[in-house]
Amino acid sequence: MLLDGKKISDEVKAELAVEVNKLISSGLRAPHLAAILVGNDGASETYVSSKVKACEQIGFGSTLVRLPADVSEERLLAEIDAINNNDEIDGLIVQLPLPKHINEQKVTDHVVPEKDVDGFHPVNVGKLVLGLPTFVSATPKGIMELLKRYNIETSGKHCVVLGRSNIVGTPMANLLSRNSNPGNCTVTLCHSRTKNLAEFTRSADILVAALGKAEFVTADMVKDGVVVIDVGITRVDDVNNPRGYVLKGDVAFDEVEPKSSFITPVPGGVGRMTIAALLQNTLQARLNSLQTQLIS
Amino acid sequence: MLLDGKKISDEVKAELAVEVNKLISSGLRAPHLAAILVGNDGASETYVSSKVKACEQIGFGSTLVRLPADVSEERLLAEIDAINNNDEIDGLIVQLPLPKHINEQKVTDHVVPEKDVDGFHPVNVGKLVLGLPTFVSATPKGIMELLKRYNIETSGKHCVVLGRSNIVGTPMANLLSRNSNPGNCTVTLCHSRTKNLAEFTRSADILVAALGKAEFVTADMVKDGVVVIDVGITRVDDVNNPRGYVLKGDVAFDEVEPKSSFITPVPGGVGRMTIAALLQNTLQARLNSLQTQLIS
Repeated sequence: MLLDGKKISDEVKAELAVEVNKLISSGLRAPHLAAILVGNDGASETYVSSKVKACEQIGFGSTLVRLPADVSEERLLAEIDAINNNDEIDGLIVQLPLPKHINEQKVTDHVVPEKDVDGFHPVNVGKLVLGLPTFVSATPKGIMELLKRYNIETSGKHCVVLGRSNIVGTPMANLLSRNSNPGNCTVTLCHSRTKNLAEFTRSADILVAALGKAEFVTADMVKDGVVVIDVGITRVDDVNNPRGYVLKGDVAFDEVEPKSSFITPVPGGVGRMTIAALLQNTLQARLNSLQTQLIS
Repeated sequence: MLLDGKKISDEVKAELAVEVNKLISSGLRAPHLAAILVGNDGASETYVSSKVKACEQIGFGSTLVRLPADVSEERLLAEIDAINNNDEIDGLIVQLPLPKHINEQKVTDHVVPEKDVDGFHPVNVGKLVLGLPTFVSATPKGIMELLKRYNIETSGKHCVVLGRSNIVGTPMANLLSRNSNPGNCTVTLCHSRTKNLAEFTRSADILVAALGKAEFVTADMVKDGVVVIDVGITRVDDVNNPRGYVLKGDVAFDEVEPKSSFITPVPGGVGRMTIAALLQNTLQARLNSLQTQLIS
């Protein structure tokens, strides 16, 4: 069965639009997301414009700050400061990757945790691991939402995560290990140094593929009934496609799908949920700041 | 072969004593650790006094703040503030567990990250997960040191961690998954909801037992040549012992040892390393503050 990221993300967005209306009819402003885009990498342009468009769809405010590829780190940090201090903006994302002359960690650390709706700041990463309320980074949060809305049983299941990135693999492993629902999985985190990878993947009840290698997971690597979450999204050249490429996941969908009980398509799976989760975090940031105003 | 925590922790402490002498001969003060002990739980008394004694052994300064079991949260937070603001103190630990009327998370969050040598503050937990320099909490850090000093190969090995606590199991899983040495393990994190636990433990090249159940891991649960790290330390009643109890690890040592390539004893294994690691963190805190003074 398809885990339909498009359908579920549309549901989430409809729910968020209702929340926006509630705020506005109470005389309060809508949530507002700011994005900083440095340079004009094709994929980054696409991601940022999807996010801005999604904001517009559901009535969120949005600001896009464009900076040239040769912008100084100092100037970028100053832009972040301005947004950190702007009470009309609830959430701030800096689209990654950044040019090599800029220290990404320094930039990530510079966004105040209260507006860090990407969940990249160390304090937010720590809260995720500790099970405290925080902004869970968008891709893992979107995957958790998908598992939840399809009522997929995770407790006691063996979940194998492929890829240990800071933004997907590692937080997924931490989230699914926790005593929560979804959660309570026995999690194995695999990566480039893993030996006998297929032995691990074949024992997986739930397989999260987040290694960024097109069609890496083949049918012989999974067991019957597996739940497959495909986080990969690689542009593969294709002369027959008017864009010159097609998008491929980390899973060879056509051959793995028949063995699976649930599987996310690419596109229309995890990517859609990522944007929905970012919007959920932005609403949360808005509600948090309203609560802070009430208390103080 | 025994992973001798006593021997290695003595080595570490001797190295730290050398660093203390270097500081003093440069006209600088020694590192100083403060501990807050609330109430008088027997095990907590023992742990805190071991830590204070270890400080004295190597020339660190130490302060023990004792508060009654019925101390208010407000008063405890005020004591933390005083130490946070005291330039003569580098590291602060609040011995856990705390009485039920006190919010442990609030207390942990109140220690400034720069003095949080237990590594419990969310920002330090986040840095650990992200692989950034930080105070790694003492037990996981001590275990990493032990693996390192015995030159145990970890890269590509399957490490099974039993127990998902915030202070041992979860940080161990994160540390051993990272691209570092020790590290680069394929890690499976098991816990109370894990099904077919013995299947996981039998596939482990490295087994970290941190679930707090005396002699839980038996010989039939491990494979030949396994490396065993036993974090458990449970008091088991024993009328034949003058203290009325004996200390037991999570591993049935007598039967598992013959199958293992390396194994930590209890006591004399991980516990000793925990204290050594706490002292290393305290030295680091001292050096960090000196560096900050130099820069500013």
